Amino acid sequence: MAPITIALDAMGGDHGPSVVVPAAALALIRHPDMRFILVGDQSRIEPELGTHPALAAKSEIVHTDVAVAMDAKPSQALRRGRWKSSMWLALEAVRDKRAAAVVSAGNTGALMAMAKFCLKTIIGVDRPAIAVIWPTVEAECIVLDVGANVGADSRQLVEFALMGASLARALFGMEKPTVGLLNIGVEEVKGVEQIKEAAAVLKEAPLPIRFHGFVEGDVIGHGIADVVVTDGFTGNIALKTAEGTARQIAAYLRAAMRRSLLARVGAVLAQGAFGALKEKMDPRQLNGGIFLGLNGIVVKSHGGTDATGFACAIDLAYDMASNGVVERLASDVAGFHAKLELEGAA
Amino acid sequence: MAPITIALDAMGGDHGPSVVVPAAALALIRHPDMRFILVGDQSRIEPELGTHPALAAKSEIVHTDVAVAMDAKPSQALRRGRWKSSMWLALEAVRDKRAAAVVSAGNTGALMAMAKFCLKTIIGVDRPAIAVIWPTVEAECIVLDVGANVGADSRQLVEFALMGASLARALFGMEKPTVGLLNIGVEEVKGVEQIKEAAAVLKEAPLPIRFHGFVEGDVIGHGIADVVVTDGFTGNIALKTAEGTARQIAAYLRAAMRRSLLARVGAVLAQGAFGALKEKMDPRQLNGGIFLGLNGIVVKSHGGTDATGFACAIDLAYDMASNGVVERLASDVAGFHAKLELEGAA
Repeated sequence: MAPITIALDAMGGDHGPSVVVPAAALALIRHPDMRFILVGDQSRIEPELGTHPALAAKSEIVHTDVAVAMDAKPSQALRRGRWKSSMWLALEAVRDKRAAAVVSAGNTGALMAMAKFCLKTIIGVDRPAIAVIWPTVEAECIVLDVGANVGADSRQLVEFALMGASLARALFGMEKPTVGLLNIGVEEVKGVEQIKEAAAVLKEAPLPIRFHGFVEGDVIGHGIADVVVTDGFTGNIALKTAEGTARQIAAYLRAAMRRSLLARVGAVLAQGAFGALKEKMDPRQLNGGIFLGLNGIVVKSHGGTDATGFACAIDLAYDMASNGVVERLASDVAGFHAKLELEGAA
Repeated sequence: MAPITIALDAMGGDHGPSVVVPAAALALIRHPDMRFILVGDQSRIEPELGTHPALAAKSEIVHTDVAVAMDAKPSQALRRGRWKSSMWLALEAVRDKRAAAVVSAGNTGALMAMAKFCLKTIIGVDRPAIAVIWPTVEAECIVLDVGANVGADSRQLVEFALMGASLARALFGMEKPTVGLLNIGVEEVKGVEQIKEAAAVLKEAPLPIRFHGFVEGDVIGHGIADVVVTDGFTGNIALKTAEGTARQIAAYLRAAMRRSLLARVGAVLAQGAFGALKEKMDPRQLNGGIFLGLNGIVVKSHGGTDATGFACAIDLAYDMASNGVVERLASDVAGFHAKLELEGAA
């Protein structure tokens, strides 16, 4: 198999190269066929790379002095960072086919604005979305949009469903993913107009999905749907609320286990089990917002994550690249529009 | 102190009198100064009451054959259940001051529609909202709206803030509650127009609150704000997502503790701690959607809850009645509008 090259925005995130470089070294151990383009300040990347000779042998540095600030507004970032920032040059490597995917822990709004400008939206897609992989009791599901847009009309919701299903097919290897629309009640009467309209389209449209209908917030994590579709505002609130609840319960659990001597002894005996639980609940394991609908793979890592978390975002980019997510998605979208046109002409 | 009478819709919920009556008996043990009006089918209530003589001595039955179906649409429920259903007659007891509060496990939409019709909205309130008490790491906070409306404009969001703050003052005994607006990012640039406008008003308005600004979904449970304000669609999704995540983690935890013999022994030793944790995470402990903005106290219990859960909803109604929530809320709303008018005239 040909090596897969990932472009890394080495200056993104709260820690820059001191997290990005060790993360790449970790990911390389898991996927020795990876290559890296590290974009950023050479004088900061090189010392880090010096301690990872295996990675250094498979990496190329693209130097730039310009980095997008974590608090830059998207328009500002575009104005100041276009053509020259580490974020832009990493995206450019994907655009020019020198890399198969880009991973950045930089500011989400700036990354989306630059990615749209540099990679362009896939033909037939109105607006890109951000998808995440959400752990469920059974396995995992895909939730989108979690924040690329603050709202979504029915057409956009249908496109999100289509893109989420393409991703599920590529990453989970399933033929007909189950798709649910997030709503506040499962009865057909409930919810806002655009969601009802999207449901009507998804029920009838010639899509390679099984449409489950409406799902409520409490079943996202129960694995009822492989893809859960919502607008970026609601999806972002749901995602963060779930993260906050998990942290809150972890805090309760720690406090409970310190409560008495017996509990402490019990916790020591059960430490293997707690270790497995901790790993299952570790947000770093599922780090990575997937930008869908662009002509290229873009994964956004949490800004504050460590090397373990950033390496998971790199793994995700690698999986998407090896499964040809962009090509599949473009072909699914084209197929959908072709069928709609045929139907319209018939 | 004069007794506090609570009207109970004995036919609401999945189980009717077989849950409502034992729940009232439980609540009476905790608050012996309670009286009850039990509204529903006498032939089903009386046998239940027979096994609870202490409760029977403090209860009056109001008989009706009509009950609102759990799946009735609000308009349907109003048409068929007005004047005569158990839900309506329980509300009427509050309207006519025979009861201080009503508790129903019936269908939410129907209960809100009837409550608006029967009790009317407080003067100066545009739309009632549903509030819940949300557990935090520190204590508890109030989140509203969690589903009375599918959207909210800036004026309504400001009213929700005002009503939530009144409730926090009454229930938590605090002078100046901290209020946050749920949004997808704490920077002022982010989010939808109505949220930004509400923030601008809350920052300047002469309200007895401390305005915290925007809060994201992950900090609701961290106790940063005493009141978290959002529209009913988003609030409902956030609430249910948190509930689902808590159930999901509880399932992980149970599975982890069955994983090995050592883990099982550890779990037995730590069972006191697990018990405390279980109680803390028990959704029944915080059962009750509070309808705010009406001329009367209405608490909606989960439809599927048991007597323990329904009793918690009764306790909540009792707390609200003894703290004069409706009077405080009406006076806060009137005061706010008076100040606004003064400012407008100045």
